[in-house]
Amino acid sequence: MPKGIPVATIARLPLYLRALRLLSDRGVKLVSSEDLANSTAVRSTKLRKDLSYLGSYGVRGVGYEVDYLIHQIARVMGLTQDWPVILIGIGNLGQALAGYGGFATRGFKVRALLDSDPMKVGTQIGDQEVQHINQLEKVIGENPNCIAVLAVPENAAQTICDRIVSAGVTSILNFVPTVLQVPDEVEMRKVDLSIELQILAFYEQRKLAQPTELENRA
Amino acid sequence: MPKGIPVATIARLPLYLRALRLLSDRGVKLVSSEDLANSTAVRSTKLRKDLSYLGSYGVRGVGYEVDYLIHQIARVMGLTQDWPVILIGIGNLGQALAGYGGFATRGFKVRALLDSDPMKVGTQIGDQEVQHINQLEKVIGENPNCIAVLAVPENAAQTICDRIVSAGVTSILNFVPTVLQVPDEVEMRKVDLSIELQILAFYEQRKLAQPTELENRA
Repeated sequence: MPKGIPVATIARLPLYLRALRLLSDRGVKLVSSEDLANSTAVRSTKLRKDLSYLGSYGVRGVGYEVDYLIHQIARVMGLTQDWPVILIGIGNLGQALAGYGGFATRGFKVRALLDSDPMKVGTQIGDQEVQHINQLEKVIGENPNCIAVLAVPENAAQTICDRIVSAGVTSILNFVPTVLQVPDEVEMRKVDLSIELQILAFYEQRKLAQPTELENRA
Repeated sequence: MPKGIPVATIARLPLYLRALRLLSDRGVKLVSSEDLANSTAVRSTKLRKDLSYLGSYGVRGVGYEVDYLIHQIARVMGLTQDWPVILIGIGNLGQALAGYGGFATRGFKVRALLDSDPMKVGTQIGDQEVQHINQLEKVIGENPNCIAVLAVPENAAQTICDRIVSAGVTSILNFVPTVLQVPDEVEMRKVDLSIELQILAFYEQRKLAQPTELENRA
């Protein structure tokens, strides 16, 4: 696996991958860096730089081979194997995540659903039955290298997070709107819906405070 | 409103705000930059720099006044008013978002739920009835400066997005796993769950390929 790929490049590779898969589905064999850049809202110079980290340079006037580039990116990203996902917290959001199509189609298999609510334990969501949270350590033991998706209530989050880490999980996708402490060797990606909205509110307010050129001219 | 606040600072202000509100709820009146930095996983030098953009410097040996700092950040972020939110697409994810507590508690009011499915139109979620998507332009007209939250199927996303923008919306929170084109003046924040998982898969794979120091020593 190539080393020293910048973090920002890693974050863009899934965008290229998705655009390339759409092209492949439409039977497209070759794509120029300009066209691929346009469909991913990245500058073409940046795209070429990103792909050069994979040892992929394309051919001048011809472009990149779509299926080969898909294979290269998927291999670098670790997506040529299936990753087990353990989903913890089956509230509204957890139920939505359990049914989220984007997981299965990209090589992620939801292997277990866990909740502490006796009303939820034993219910069926998709092809999985919700298990009691006291099965957490057992389930993690049965799914080496699993990714834990955390969608529990805020007040339970750090305790559950500590149990996940103690059981050996090193990758966590966190939906809980609170700051969670994890050791340095644990990778945590955080999704917080209210924070994204707050950032939008800032820009919305700024637009209101500073009328656009069009409005100034009117 | 202060101008020229860096984008990265804007992205951290909601984190400080949440930590400060927790302190305020516990009756804490003063907080040091070190303690606030620790609870938000930011370095204290960076935190002090961020807050200096707000004209807030704290007092050496005393720290920041919690409630005053809350007020300052909320004012800069535009959170001292209620922002109307229009939620489009009431599938699993849309239903989870409609019930997401983090919206209401942070000054966002869900003003309308829209879907094209006749089975969903007319059903009640929380205090809102799902309306037909053909009401989109009317609803946006009735809610000036609203933020649109997009959770529709991929194949409908660009069409709906174009309608939202034509109707005058300039802030969009996008949950659809596809690239959407919007004019430069429209601010779009994107949440894509599979992309975050793909980035985790990269790090998980790298850990497997490069055993940790601990494992090397064992």
